[in-house]
Amino acid sequence: MASGPGFSDEKNDTLCESESTVYVHNPHLDGMKDDFLYHFNLGTSTHNLPAMFGDVKFVCVGGSPWRMKSFIEYIAGELSLEDPKAEYPNICAGTDRYAMYKIGPVLSVSHGIGIPSIAIMLHELIKLLYHARCTDVTIIRIGTSGGLGLEPGTVVVTKQSVDATFLPRLEQVILGNTVVRSTDLHQGLAEELLQCSKDLGQFETVIGNTMCTMDFYEGQARLDGAFCSYTEKDKQDYLTKAYESGVRNIEMESSVFAAMCQLSGLKGAVVCATLLDRQKGDQLSSSHEVLHSYQQRPQILVGHLIKKMLQASASSKS
Amino acid sequence: MASGPGFSDEKNDTLCESESTVYVHNPHLDGMKDDFLYHFNLGTSTHNLPAMFGDVKFVCVGGSPWRMKSFIEYIAGELSLEDPKAEYPNICAGTDRYAMYKIGPVLSVSHGIGIPSIAIMLHELIKLLYHARCTDVTIIRIGTSGGLGLEPGTVVVTKQSVDATFLPRLEQVILGNTVVRSTDLHQGLAEELLQCSKDLGQFETVIGNTMCTMDFYEGQARLDGAFCSYTEKDKQDYLTKAYESGVRNIEMESSVFAAMCQLSGLKGAVVCATLLDRQKGDQLSSSHEVLHSYQQRPQILVGHLIKKMLQASASSKS
Repeated sequence: MASGPGFSDEKNDTLCESESTVYVHNPHLDGMKDDFLYHFNLGTSTHNLPAMFGDVKFVCVGGSPWRMKSFIEYIAGELSLEDPKAEYPNICAGTDRYAMYKIGPVLSVSHGIGIPSIAIMLHELIKLLYHARCTDVTIIRIGTSGGLGLEPGTVVVTKQSVDATFLPRLEQVILGNTVVRSTDLHQGLAEELLQCSKDLGQFETVIGNTMCTMDFYEGQARLDGAFCSYTEKDKQDYLTKAYESGVRNIEMESSVFAAMCQLSGLKGAVVCATLLDRQKGDQLSSSHEVLHSYQQRPQILVGHLIKKMLQASASSKS
Repeated sequence: MASGPGFSDEKNDTLCESESTVYVHNPHLDGMKDDFLYHFNLGTSTHNLPAMFGDVKFVCVGGSPWRMKSFIEYIAGELSLEDPKAEYPNICAGTDRYAMYKIGPVLSVSHGIGIPSIAIMLHELIKLLYHARCTDVTIIRIGTSGGLGLEPGTVVVTKQSVDATFLPRLEQVILGNTVVRSTDLHQGLAEELLQCSKDLGQFETVIGNTMCTMDFYEGQARLDGAFCSYTEKDKQDYLTKAYESGVRNIEMESSVFAAMCQLSGLKGAVVCATLLDRQKGDQLSSSHEVLHSYQQRPQILVGHLIKKMLQASASSKS
């Protein structure tokens, strides 16, 4: 698998025959006697991370622990790797902060809600992949979102993650100073996902910008929070501006996900189902069954991509 | 129980004989046919919220669902309300986003990690208390944190929640515009909690400012994240400045908790155990048992306060 621009490192390319390594960027780590990944309850002195995770090639992350368990069951069936009715143990069973499951080269991890929650998980995941000496890892967030100008159930693959002013950036405060990080995602991977949707022909998928907000209610112009100081017209004007700038869906994790993929050299994509059209309402009115079927769509799309990439990798080696 | 300044409403004081109502501030809510609290999987058309929650006087919230279940078991024993070995069902069992438990007048709810995660929970909790017509509700966050200049295990009751530049404010983006909200907490309640610690004489408790950050690693000047672009000296200089400004602990939820308490008229406090002294390290080196005993301390303190307030309320009525 060729690495896209910005996702390779000359030194490691030479050492590892073009395999792209997952990078931490922290000179302090090598001086640490051991590294305890607190929120995973895993550590370098208590676990053999290369043996447990060295073969990981795909990481799928999503907010809900239940959904990430159901994903590993689904992918096990898709890859014919195990009896799909088998039980998959939670690798992070010693903590209730995040849940983690693995089958073959696929790791599935929950990240909770919002930028701070997913950022902690990604810091520890990137260190885990580094300690395990993983190479050529692709990471995909599968989530749910509110849509803009799309039929509910449409899947959006993120081109750029933008903030609440529609700019493709993440402002992060380090030692009290604001640092701005880029939130572009891997275009080649996004296009491969779009092609997968065409292969499948089961549901609509589009590539568009994703607005990432710090709040679900006031931050997404909802009228149904505990507090609301604006009118229906203010809301519609804001969502129209978002649509005109290229935003097709709204969620709460993509910006820091994109920024940390760029920094670490992970090839990353964000694939979210839209559960409703926010220009038509704020609350979910579809039935439980319909919503459940929408939530399955990113899993189906990413399952197809993983199968296709593993087949391509196997045939290039044979 | 008398309401403190800023926590009463003239109209409701008259109607409810000095009882202080929980307020939403949203003119759109009354026009809604029903209100579905999506992340709790509870709604006004599917649940009798006044019957289920109308007697709630105390809400305790914390990041971990396990800890909030253990709190309800603990408080049930403390208040002699039920067999402490009984099973307490998760009221939000239909979702894995948040967990909720109740015993008598005490509600215990998990909120996940970070400002966005707790903000969603608080929006829906405030609406729940409003729909249930609760009055005189006290809400306390019981959590864990990194300490500054304190012996590990010390409990900090927050005076003000400050941001990463040590200012008592929360910047929130609404319709693309930044709104600044105050993060003061209820001083009388903080002092009552300090008095409870003196009554108990089991562990050290201080009142101080709490720094609330958006990130656990770079945002808290840790040297052990996946990325770190500063030195040990930069870290120490920053933490020293934080200490000098009055910060005694660092966590990730207090600012929006304080802001939403102020906006809704909930009497709020933040009570966190410090698990380590951040000026001496970043990773937790204490044993599992020691850390567990530190985590119990906010529960013990808040359990004592609830018992004391219920006894005072009973004797004032008799």
